[in-house]
Amino acid sequence: MAINNSVEIKDNENIDDLQLNGLMLIQKTDGFKFGVDAVLLSDFANVKKKHKVIDLCTGTGIIPFLLYGKYNPSSIKGIEVQEDMVEMANRSVNLNETYNIEFIHRDLKDIDFLKTVEKADVITVNPPYKLNNAGIVNPSDKLSIARHEVLCNLENVIEASRILLKDNGRLFMVHRPERLADIITLMRKYKIEPKRIRMVHPNKNKAPNIVLVEGQRDGGSFLKWDAPIYVYNEDGNYSDEINRIYGRGENNK
Amino acid sequence: MAINNSVEIKDNENIDDLQLNGLMLIQKTDGFKFGVDAVLLSDFANVKKKHKVIDLCTGTGIIPFLLYGKYNPSSIKGIEVQEDMVEMANRSVNLNETYNIEFIHRDLKDIDFLKTVEKADVITVNPPYKLNNAGIVNPSDKLSIARHEVLCNLENVIEASRILLKDNGRLFMVHRPERLADIITLMRKYKIEPKRIRMVHPNKNKAPNIVLVEGQRDGGSFLKWDAPIYVYNEDGNYSDEINRIYGRGENNK
Repeated sequence: MAINNSVEIKDNENIDDLQLNGLMLIQKTDGFKFGVDAVLLSDFANVKKKHKVIDLCTGTGIIPFLLYGKYNPSSIKGIEVQEDMVEMANRSVNLNETYNIEFIHRDLKDIDFLKTVEKADVITVNPPYKLNNAGIVNPSDKLSIARHEVLCNLENVIEASRILLKDNGRLFMVHRPERLADIITLMRKYKIEPKRIRMVHPNKNKAPNIVLVEGQRDGGSFLKWDAPIYVYNEDGNYSDEINRIYGRGENNK
Repeated sequence: MAINNSVEIKDNENIDDLQLNGLMLIQKTDGFKFGVDAVLLSDFANVKKKHKVIDLCTGTGIIPFLLYGKYNPSSIKGIEVQEDMVEMANRSVNLNETYNIEFIHRDLKDIDFLKTVEKADVITVNPPYKLNNAGIVNPSDKLSIARHEVLCNLENVIEASRILLKDNGRLFMVHRPERLADIITLMRKYKIEPKRIRMVHPNKNKAPNIVLVEGQRDGGSFLKWDAPIYVYNEDGNYSDEINRIYGRGENNK
Protein backbone atom coordinates (compact mmCIF):
# COMPACT_ATOMS: atom_id res chain seq x y z
CA MET A 1 0.00 0.00 0.00
CA ALA A 2 1.51 3.31 -1.05
CA ILE A 3 1.24 6.13 1.41
CA ASN A 4 -0.08 9.53 0.53
CA ASN A 5 2.93 11.84 0.45
CA SER A 6 0.92 15.03 0.45
CA VAL A 7 -0.01 14.68 4.15
CA GLU A 8 1.66 17.16 6.47
CA ILE A 9 3.92 15.75 9.20
CA LYS A 10 4.85 18.23 11.91
CA ASP A 11 8.27 18.74 13.44
CA ASN A 12 7.35 16.98 16.68
CA GLU A 13 5.86 13.95 14.89
CA ASN A 14 7.16 10.70 13.47
CA ILE A 15 5.67 8.26 11.01
CA ASP A 16 5.84 4.72 12.41
CA ASP A 17 5.43 1.60 10.28
CA LEU A 18 2.80 -0.69 11.87
CA GLN A 19 4.33 -3.75 10.11
CA LEU A 20 0.82 -4.60 8.97
CA ASN A 21 -0.16 -4.29 5.31
CA GLY A 22 2.04 -1.22 4.92
CA LEU A 23 -0.02 0.84 7.38
CA MET A 24 1.66 3.88 8.92
CA LEU A 25 0.82 5.85 12.07
CA ILE A 26 1.67 9.42 12.96
CA GLN A 27 2.79 9.72 16.57
CA LYS A 28 4.25 12.59 18.54
CA THR A 29 7.96 12.21 19.23
CA ASP A 30 7.48 13.20 22.87
CA GLY A 31 4.00 11.69 23.37
CA PHE A 32 2.42 8.38 24.28
CA LYS A 33 3.67 5.63 21.97
CA PHE A 34 1.46 2.66 21.28
CA GLY A 35 2.64 -0.53 22.91
CA VAL A 36 1.82 -4.15 23.48
CA ASP A 37 -1.62 -3.29 24.93
CA ALA A 38 -2.95 -2.05 21.59
CA VAL A 39 -1.53 -5.05 19.73
CA LEU A 40 -2.97 -7.53 22.24
CA LEU A 41 -6.37 -5.85 22.17
CA SER A 42 -6.56 -5.89 18.38
CA ASP A 43 -5.79 -9.62 18.45
CA PHE A 44 -8.31 -10.29 21.25
CA ALA A 45 -11.16 -8.38 19.61
CA ASN A 46 -13.47 -10.54 17.52
CA VAL A 47 -14.19 -8.26 14.55
CA LYS A 48 -15.88 -9.27 11.31
CA LYS A 49 -15.94 -7.55 7.93
CA LYS A 50 -19.59 -6.57 8.32
CA HIS A 51 -19.03 -4.92 11.70
CA LYS A 52 -19.28 -1.28 12.60
CA VAL A 53 -16.61 -0.59 15.19
CA ILE A 54 -16.07 2.26 17.64
CA ASP A 55 -12.79 2.75 19.48
CA LEU A 56 -12.97 4.87 22.62
CA CYS A 57 -10.02 6.83 24.05
CA THR A 58 -8.49 6.27 20.63
CA GLY A 59 -5.51 8.65 21.04
CA THR A 60 -3.22 8.32 18.01
CA GLY A 61 -5.73 5.95 16.42
CA ILE A 62 -3.47 2.94 16.75
CA ILE A 63 -6.28 0.49 17.51
CA PRO A 64 -8.48 1.51 14.54
CA PHE A 65 -5.51 1.10 12.18
CA LEU A 66 -4.59 -2.30 13.63
CA LEU A 67 -8.24 -3.45 13.36
CA TYR A 68 -8.36 -2.15 9.80
CA GLY A 69 -5.23 -4.06 8.90
CA LYS A 70 -6.36 -7.30 10.54
CA TYR A 71 -10.11 -7.40 9.84
CA ASN A 72 -11.06 -4.58 7.44
CA PRO A 73 -14.46 -4.00 9.06
CA SER A 74 -17.26 -2.00 7.47
CA SER A 75 -16.43 1.16 9.40
CA ILE A 76 -14.33 2.28 12.35
CA LYS A 77 -14.92 5.43 14.33
CA GLY A 78 -12.38 6.62 16.88
CA ILE A 79 -13.63 8.96 19.60
CA GLU A 80 -11.07 11.11 21.37
CA VAL A 81 -11.36 14.12 23.66
CA GLN A 82 -7.99 15.72 22.82
CA GLU A 83 -8.49 17.82 19.70
CA ASP A 84 -4.86 17.81 18.55
CA MET A 85 -4.81 14.00 18.73
CA VAL A 86 -7.95 13.77 16.58
CA GLU A 87 -6.42 16.12 14.02
CA MET A 88 -3.24 14.02 13.94
CA ALA A 89 -5.15 10.71 13.71
CA ASN A 90 -7.20 12.05 10.78
CA ARG A 91 -3.93 12.89 9.03
CA SER A 92 -2.96 9.22 9.54
CA VAL A 93 -6.23 8.35 7.72
CA ASN A 94 -5.20 10.57 4.82
CA LEU A 95 -1.68 9.16 4.90
CA ASN A 96 -2.98 5.59 4.58
CA GLU A 97 -6.03 6.54 2.47
CA THR A 98 -8.14 4.37 4.80
CA TYR A 99 -11.33 6.34 4.50
CA ASN A 100 -13.59 3.93 6.37
CA ILE A 101 -11.76 5.10 9.49
CA GLU A 102 -12.92 8.37 10.98
CA PHE A 103 -11.78 10.18 14.09
CA ILE A 104 -14.21 12.34 16.01
CA HIS A 105 -13.38 15.00 18.55
CA ARG A 106 -15.80 14.41 21.40
CA ASP A 107 -15.87 13.76 25.10
CA LEU A 108 -17.26 10.28 25.80
CA LYS A 109 -18.94 11.74 28.88
CA ASP A 110 -21.21 13.69 26.51
CA ILE A 111 -24.15 11.30 26.80
CA ASP A 112 -26.44 13.39 24.57
CA PHE A 113 -23.87 13.17 21.79
CA LEU A 114 -23.39 9.41 22.28
CA LYS A 115 -27.12 8.86 21.81
CA THR A 116 -26.89 10.38 18.31
CA VAL A 117 -24.14 7.99 17.15
CA GLU A 118 -25.02 4.96 15.02
CA LYS A 119 -24.86 1.86 17.23
CA ALA A 120 -21.76 -0.34 16.97
CA ASP A 121 -21.34 -4.11 16.73
CA VAL A 122 -18.01 -3.84 18.49
CA ILE A 123 -16.41 -1.36 20.84
CA THR A 124 -12.72 -1.47 21.64
CA VAL A 125 -11.03 0.54 24.36
CA ASN A 126 -7.60 0.88 25.91
CA PRO A 127 -8.55 3.31 28.65
CA PRO A 128 -6.31 5.18 31.05
CA TYR A 129 -5.37 2.59 33.66
CA LYS A 130 -4.52 4.44 36.77
CA LEU A 131 -6.86 5.89 39.33
CA ASN A 132 -6.55 9.66 39.33
CA ASN A 133 -5.34 9.80 42.91
CA ALA A 134 -1.60 9.43 42.56
CA GLY A 135 -0.44 13.02 42.65
CA ILE A 136 -0.28 14.03 39.02
CA VAL A 137 1.92 17.09 38.55
CA ASN A 138 0.40 18.37 35.34
CA PRO A 139 -3.11 17.27 34.37
CA SER A 140 -2.73 18.76 30.88
CA ASP A 141 0.25 16.48 30.22
CA LYS A 142 -0.56 13.99 27.44
CA LEU A 143 1.21 11.07 29.08
CA SER A 144 -0.84 11.63 32.23
CA ILE A 145 -4.04 11.78 30.19
CA ALA A 146 -3.18 8.52 28.44
CA ARG A 147 -2.30 6.71 31.66
CA HIS A 148 -4.41 8.27 34.41
CA GLU A 149 -8.13 8.76 34.75
CA VAL A 150 -7.83 12.53 34.30
CA LEU A 151 -10.39 13.14 31.56
CA CYS A 152 -12.42 9.96 31.83
CA ASN A 153 -12.63 7.03 34.20
CA LEU A 154 -13.57 3.39 33.88
CA GLU A 155 -17.23 4.05 34.66
CA ASN A 156 -17.42 6.71 31.93
CA VAL A 157 -16.00 4.23 29.41
CA ILE A 158 -18.41 1.44 30.35
CA GLU A 159 -21.44 3.73 30.49
CA ALA A 160 -20.53 5.08 27.03
CA SER A 161 -20.18 1.52 25.74
CA ARG A 162 -23.64 0.65 27.03
CA ILE A 163 -25.08 3.51 24.99
CA LEU A 164 -23.00 2.95 21.86
CA LEU A 165 -23.41 -0.82 21.51
CA LYS A 166 -26.13 -2.62 19.59
CA ASP A 167 -28.12 -5.25 21.50
CA ASN A 168 -25.75 -8.14 22.12
CA GLY A 169 -22.86 -6.09 20.77
CA ARG A 170 -19.41 -6.75 22.23
CA LEU A 171 -17.03 -4.61 24.22
CA PHE A 172 -13.32 -5.52 24.15
CA MET A 173 -11.11 -3.86 26.73
CA VAL A 174 -7.46 -4.04 27.71
CA HIS A 175 -6.70 -3.04 31.28
CA ARG A 176 -4.72 -3.94 34.39
CA PRO A 177 -5.59 -7.02 36.49
CA GLU A 178 -5.72 -4.99 39.72
CA ARG A 179 -8.76 -3.20 38.29
CA LEU A 180 -10.65 -6.38 37.33
CA ALA A 181 -13.03 -6.17 40.29
CA ASP A 182 -13.93 -2.63 39.19
CA ILE A 183 -14.30 -3.71 35.55
CA ILE A 184 -16.62 -6.60 36.40
CA THR A 185 -18.70 -4.60 38.89
CA LEU A 186 -19.16 -1.72 36.44
CA MET A 187 -19.90 -3.99 33.49
CA ARG A 188 -22.63 -5.68 35.52
CA LYS A 189 -23.94 -2.26 36.62
CA TYR A 190 -24.35 -1.21 32.98
CA LYS A 191 -25.60 -4.66 31.88
CA ILE A 192 -22.56 -5.53 29.82
CA GLU A 193 -21.95 -9.11 30.88
CA PRO A 194 -18.32 -10.26 31.21
CA LYS A 195 -18.07 -13.19 28.78
CA ARG A 196 -14.37 -13.87 28.25
CA ILE A 197 -11.10 -13.03 29.95
CA ARG A 198 -7.54 -13.57 28.82
CA MET A 199 -4.66 -12.86 31.15
CA VAL A 200 -1.25 -11.75 29.96
CA HIS A 201 1.82 -12.55 32.05
CA PRO A 202 5.41 -11.32 31.54
CA ASN A 203 6.36 -14.99 31.78
CA LYS A 204 4.78 -18.13 33.19
CA ASN A 205 6.22 -17.60 36.68
CA LYS A 206 4.86 -14.08 37.11
CA ALA A 207 1.47 -12.71 38.08
CA PRO A 208 -0.54 -11.30 35.16
CA ASN A 209 0.08 -7.61 34.40
CA ILE A 210 -2.43 -7.13 31.56
CA VAL A 211 -6.03 -8.32 31.31
CA LEU A 212 -8.18 -8.59 28.19
CA VAL A 213 -11.93 -8.58 28.85
CA GLU A 214 -14.82 -9.21 26.49
CA GLY A 215 -18.29 -8.10 27.53
CA GLN A 216 -21.63 -8.48 25.79
CA ARG A 217 -24.45 -5.97 26.06
CA ASP A 218 -27.31 -7.82 27.80
CA GLY A 219 -25.40 -11.10 27.43
CA GLY A 220 -26.20 -14.16 29.54
CA SER A 221 -23.87 -14.93 32.41
CA PHE A 222 -21.12 -17.36 31.57
CA LEU A 223 -17.51 -16.32 31.84
CA LYS A 224 -15.03 -18.19 29.67
CA TRP A 225 -11.30 -18.03 30.37
CA ASP A 226 -8.78 -18.33 27.57
CA ALA A 227 -5.37 -19.89 27.95
CA PRO A 228 -2.97 -17.19 29.18
CA ILE A 229 -0.45 -15.30 27.12
CA TYR A 230 3.16 -15.30 28.32
CA VAL A 231 5.10 -12.50 26.68
CA TYR A 232 8.49 -14.13 27.20
CA ASN A 233 9.62 -17.74 27.29
CA GLU A 234 11.89 -18.92 30.05
CA ASP A 235 14.86 -18.41 27.71
CA GLY A 236 14.01 -14.68 27.49
CA ASN A 237 12.78 -14.83 23.88
CA TYR A 238 9.30 -13.79 22.83
CA SER A 239 6.79 -16.63 23.11
CA ASP A 240 5.28 -18.25 20.02
CA GLU A 241 1.92 -16.67 20.89
CA ILE A 242 3.42 -13.18 21.01
CA ASN A 243 5.17 -13.82 17.70
CA ARG A 244 1.84 -14.96 16.23
CA ILE A 245 0.05 -11.87 17.55
CA TYR A 246 2.75 -9.58 16.17
CA GLY A 247 2.57 -11.39 12.85
CA ARG A 248 6.06 -12.81 13.11
CA GLY A 249 6.68 -16.44 12.26
CA GLU A 250 4.67 -19.12 10.51
CA ASN A 251 1.39 -18.83 12.38
CA ASN A 252 0.66 -15.29 11.25
CA LYS A 253 -3.10 -15.16 10.90
CA MET B 1 0.05 -38.31 66.79
CA ALA B 2 -1.76 -41.40 67.98
CA ILE B 3 -5.34 -41.74 66.92
CA ASN B 4 -8.13 -42.50 69.32
CA ASN B 5 -9.12 -46.10 68.65
CA SER B 6 -12.36 -45.94 70.59
CA VAL B 7 -14.09 -43.87 67.87
CA GLU B 8 -16.76 -45.69 65.91
CA ILE B 9 -16.21 -46.08 62.16
CA LYS B 10 -19.28 -47.20 60.23
CA ASP B 11 -19.44 -49.82 57.50
CA ASN B 12 -19.78 -47.24 54.73
CA GLU B 13 -16.87 -45.14 56.00
CA ASN B 14 -13.10 -45.12 55.55
CA ILE B 15 -10.35 -43.49 57.55
CA ASP B 16 -8.04 -41.55 55.24
CA ASP B 17 -4.57 -40.37 56.23
CA LEU B 18 -4.19 -36.64 55.46
CA GLN B 19 -0.38 -37.02 55.26
CA LEU B 20 -0.14 -34.04 57.60
CA ASN B 21 1.06 -34.49 61.18
CA GLY B 22 -0.67 -37.86 61.39
CA LEU B 23 -4.16 -36.38 60.96
CA MET B 24 -6.92 -38.72 59.82
CA LEU B 25 -10.28 -38.00 58.22
CA ILE B 26 -13.41 -40.12 58.18
CA GLN B 27 -15.06 -40.10 54.74
CA LYS B 28 -17.95 -42.05 53.33
CA THR B 29 -16.86 -44.75 50.90
CA ASP B 30 -19.54 -43.71 48.41
CA GLY B 31 -19.55 -39.97 49.15
CA PHE B 32 -17.72 -36.84 48.15
CA LYS B 33 -13.96 -37.27 48.64
CA PHE B 34 -11.82 -34.24 49.34
CA GLY B 35 -9.62 -33.22 46.48
CA VAL B 36 -7.14 -30.68 45.29
CA ASP B 37 -9.55 -27.79 45.98
CA ALA B 38 -9.38 -28.28 49.75
CA VAL B 39 -5.62 -28.63 49.70
CA LEU B 40 -5.17 -25.50 47.56
CA LEU B 41 -7.53 -23.48 49.74
CA SER B 42 -5.75 -24.46 52.94
CA ASP B 43 -2.46 -23.32 51.38
CA PHE B 44 -3.98 -20.07 50.05
CA ALA B 45 -5.62 -19.10 53.36
CA ASN B 46 -3.53 -16.83 55.52
CA VAL B 47 -4.22 -18.20 59.01
CA LYS B 48 -2.32 -17.32 62.18
CA LYS B 49 -2.16 -19.09 65.53
CA LYS B 50 -4.22 -16.40 67.24
CA HIS B 51 -7.04 -16.61 64.69
CA LYS B 52 -10.56 -17.83 65.18
CA VAL B 53 -11.58 -19.59 61.97
CA ILE B 54 -14.95 -20.65 60.56
CA ASP B 55 -15.26 -23.03 57.63
CA LEU B 56 -18.57 -22.92 55.77
CA CYS B 57 -20.00 -25.85 53.79
CA THR B 58 -17.46 -27.90 55.70
CA GLY B 59 -18.75 -31.35 54.69
CA THR B 60 -16.37 -34.03 56.01
CA GLY B 61 -14.39 -31.30 57.78
CA ILE B 62 -11.38 -31.67 55.52
CA ILE B 63 -10.53 -27.96 55.49
CA PRO B 64 -10.62 -27.52 59.29
CA PHE B 65 -8.30 -30.50 59.68
CA LEU B 66 -5.88 -29.21 57.02
CA LEU B 67 -5.88 -25.74 58.63
CA TYR B 68 -5.31 -27.33 62.03
CA GLY B 69 -2.36 -29.30 60.69
CA LYS B 70 -0.79 -26.34 58.90
CA TYR B 71 -1.49 -23.39 61.21
CA ASN B 72 -2.94 -24.67 64.52
CA PRO B 73 -5.19 -21.62 64.97
CA SER B 74 -6.92 -20.73 68.23
CA SER B 75 -10.22 -22.33 67.21
CA ILE B 76 -11.93 -23.68 64.11
CA LYS B 77 -15.67 -24.07 63.71
CA GLY B 78 -17.10 -25.95 60.75
CA ILE B 79 -20.71 -25.21 59.82
CA GLU B 80 -22.58 -27.81 57.82
CA VAL B 81 -26.25 -28.29 56.98
CA GLN B 82 -26.18 -32.08 56.58
CA GLU B 83 -26.59 -33.59 60.02
CA ASP B 84 -24.96 -36.94 59.25
CA MET B 85 -21.87 -35.15 57.89
CA VAL B 86 -21.60 -33.10 61.09
CA GLU B 87 -21.87 -36.24 63.20
CA MET B 88 -19.15 -37.91 61.11
CA ALA B 89 -16.87 -34.84 61.20
CA ASN B 90 -17.18 -34.66 65.00
CA ARG B 91 -16.10 -38.31 65.14
CA SER B 92 -13.00 -37.21 63.15
CA VAL B 93 -12.38 -34.65 65.92
CA ASN B 94 -12.54 -37.42 68.49
CA LEU B 95 -10.37 -39.66 66.34
CA ASN B 96 -7.65 -37.00 66.14
CA GLU B 97 -8.31 -35.56 69.59
CA THR B 98 -8.24 -32.09 68.04
CA TYR B 99 -10.67 -30.48 70.41
CA ASN B 100 -10.22 -26.89 69.21
CA ILE B 101 -12.14 -28.01 66.11
CA GLU B 102 -15.91 -28.14 66.44
CA PHE B 103 -18.55 -28.99 63.87
CA ILE B 104 -21.97 -27.41 64.10
CA HIS B 105 -25.14 -28.58 62.41
CA ARG B 106 -26.73 -25.42 61.04
CA ASP B 107 -27.98 -23.94 57.81
CA LEU B 108 -25.82 -20.94 56.83
CA LYS B 109 -29.01 -19.31 55.53
CA ASP B 110 -30.15 -19.06 59.16
CA ILE B 111 -29.19 -15.41 59.62
CA ASP B 112 -30.55 -15.19 63.16
CA PHE B 113 -28.28 -18.06 64.17
CA LEU B 114 -25.26 -16.54 62.40
CA LYS B 115 -25.66 -13.34 64.40
CA THR B 116 -25.22 -15.31 67.63
CA VAL B 117 -21.85 -16.81 66.58
CA GLU B 118 -18.58 -15.29 67.81
CA LYS B 119 -17.01 -13.29 64.96
CA ALA B 120 -14.16 -14.91 63.03
CA ASP B 121 -10.79 -13.55 61.88
CA VAL B 122 -10.88 -15.90 58.92
CA ILE B 123 -13.58 -17.71 56.98
CA THR B 124 -12.78 -20.44 54.53
CA VAL B 125 -15.23 -21.97 52.10
CA ASN B 126 -15.25 -24.50 49.30
CA PRO B 127 -18.85 -24.02 48.22
CA PRO B 128 -20.87 -26.05 45.75
CA TYR B 129 -19.69 -24.80 42.36
CA LYS B 130 -22.46 -25.44 39.96
CA LEU B 131 -25.57 -23.40 39.41
CA ASN B 132 -28.60 -25.43 40.41
CA ASN B 133 -30.08 -25.42 36.93
CA ALA B 134 -28.51 -28.43 35.32
CA GLY B 135 -31.17 -31.06 35.80
CA ILE B 136 -30.21 -32.76 39.03
CA VAL B 137 -31.86 -36.16 39.30
CA ASN B 138 -31.85 -36.48 43.07
CA PRO B 139 -31.53 -33.35 45.19
CA SER B 140 -30.97 -35.43 48.35
CA ASP B 141 -27.90 -37.03 46.77
CA LYS B 142 -24.76 -36.03 48.69
CA LEU B 143 -22.59 -35.63 45.60
CA SER B 144 -25.17 -33.25 44.14
CA ILE B 145 -25.25 -31.28 47.39
CA ALA B 146 -21.47 -30.99 47.42
CA ARG B 147 -21.25 -29.88 43.80
CA HIS B 148 -24.48 -28.05 43.01
CA GLU B 149 -26.13 -25.09 44.66
CA VAL B 150 -28.95 -27.25 46.04
CA LEU B 151 -28.93 -26.25 49.70
CA CYS B 152 -27.02 -22.98 49.46
CA ASN B 153 -25.78 -20.70 46.73
CA LEU B 154 -22.89 -18.31 46.32
CA GLU B 155 -24.88 -15.37 47.63
CA ASN B 156 -25.84 -17.28 50.79
CA VAL B 157 -22.17 -18.06 51.42
CA ILE B 158 -21.02 -14.47 50.96
CA GLU B 159 -23.87 -13.00 52.98
CA ALA B 160 -23.08 -15.43 55.80
CA SER B 161 -19.40 -14.43 55.62
CA ARG B 162 -20.33 -10.77 55.94
CA ILE B 163 -22.15 -11.55 59.18
CA LEU B 164 -19.58 -13.96 60.60
CA LEU B 165 -16.39 -11.94 59.94
CA LYS B 166 -14.81 -9.43 62.26
CA ASP B 167 -14.13 -5.97 60.83
CA ASN B 168 -11.32 -6.38 58.29
CA GLY B 169 -11.51 -10.16 58.65
CA ARG B 170 -10.65 -12.26 55.62
CA LEU B 171 -12.67 -14.63 53.49
CA PHE B 172 -10.78 -17.29 51.51
CA MET B 173 -12.74 -19.12 48.84
CA VAL B 174 -11.98 -21.76 46.23
CA HIS B 175 -14.31 -21.77 43.25
CA ARG B 176 -14.44 -22.03 39.45
CA PRO B 177 -13.14 -19.25 37.19
CA GLU B 178 -16.39 -19.10 35.22
CA ARG B 179 -18.11 -17.87 38.39
CA LEU B 180 -15.57 -15.10 39.10
CA ALA B 181 -17.86 -12.33 37.86
CA ASP B 182 -20.53 -13.58 40.28
CA ILE B 183 -18.03 -13.87 43.13
CA ILE B 184 -16.72 -10.34 42.65
CA THR B 185 -20.17 -8.80 42.21
CA LEU B 186 -21.54 -10.51 45.31
CA MET B 187 -18.46 -9.72 47.41
CA ARG B 188 -18.83 -6.06 46.51
CA LYS B 189 -22.57 -6.25 47.27
CA TYR B 190 -21.83 -7.50 50.80
CA LYS B 191 -18.82 -5.18 51.23
CA ILE B 192 -16.21 -7.91 51.23
CA GLU B 193 -13.57 -6.41 48.96
CA PRO B 194 -11.71 -8.79 46.62
CA LYS B 195 -8.06 -8.35 47.61
CA ARG B 196 -6.14 -11.24 46.08
CA ILE B 197 -6.68 -13.84 43.38
CA ARG B 198 -4.65 -16.88 42.45
CA MET B 199 -5.50 -18.88 39.37
CA VAL B 200 -4.84 -22.60 39.06
CA HIS B 201 -4.27 -24.13 35.63
CA PRO B 202 -3.98 -27.83 34.74
CA ASN B 203 -0.78 -26.83 32.96
CA LYS B 204 0.68 -23.61 31.59
CA ASN B 205 -0.98 -23.97 28.19
CA LYS B 206 -4.51 -24.38 29.56
CA ALA B 207 -7.10 -21.93 30.79
CA PRO B 208 -7.47 -21.82 34.57
CA ASN B 209 -9.97 -24.29 36.06
CA ILE B 210 -9.77 -23.30 39.73
CA VAL B 211 -9.72 -19.84 41.28
CA LEU B 212 -8.66 -18.89 44.79
CA VAL B 213 -10.08 -15.58 46.03
CA GLU B 214 -9.30 -13.61 49.17
CA GLY B 215 -11.74 -10.93 50.28
CA GLN B 216 -11.58 -8.52 53.20
CA ARG B 217 -14.62 -7.28 55.08
CA ASP B 218 -14.76 -3.51 54.46
CA GLY B 219 -11.31 -3.65 52.85
CA GLY B 220 -10.01 -0.93 50.54
CA SER B 221 -10.05 -1.64 46.83
CA PHE B 222 -6.83 -3.01 45.49
CA LEU B 223 -6.75 -6.41 43.87
CA LYS B 224 -3.43 -8.25 43.91
CA TRP B 225 -2.79 -11.20 41.59
CA ASP B 226 -0.47 -14.00 42.61
CA ALA B 227 1.64 -15.97 40.20
CA PRO B 228 -0.46 -18.84 38.87
CA ILE B 229 -0.29 -22.46 39.95
CA TYR B 230 0.18 -25.08 37.22
CA VAL B 231 -0.78 -28.49 38.52
CA TYR B 232 1.32 -30.37 35.99
CA ASN B 233 4.60 -29.59 34.27
CA GLU B 234 4.95 -30.08 30.56
CA ASP B 235 6.52 -33.50 31.25
CA GLY B 236 3.27 -34.59 32.95
CA ASN B 237 4.76 -34.61 36.47
CA TYR B 238 3.36 -32.53 39.31
CA SER B 239 4.84 -29.04 39.40
CA ASP B 240 7.21 -27.97 42.18
CA GLU B 241 4.50 -25.65 43.52
CA ILE B 242 1.99 -28.50 43.80
CA ASN B 243 4.61 -30.67 45.49
CA ARG B 244 5.28 -27.82 47.93
CA ILE B 245 1.55 -27.39 48.65
CA TYR B 246 1.12 -31.12 49.21
CA GLY B 247 4.15 -31.12 51.47
CA ARG B 248 6.21 -33.26 49.14
CA GLY B 249 9.83 -32.37 48.44
CA GLU B 250 12.31 -30.01 50.05
CA ASN B 251 10.21 -26.85 50.15
CA ASN B 252 7.61 -28.26 52.51
CA LYS B 253 6.60 -25.30 54.64
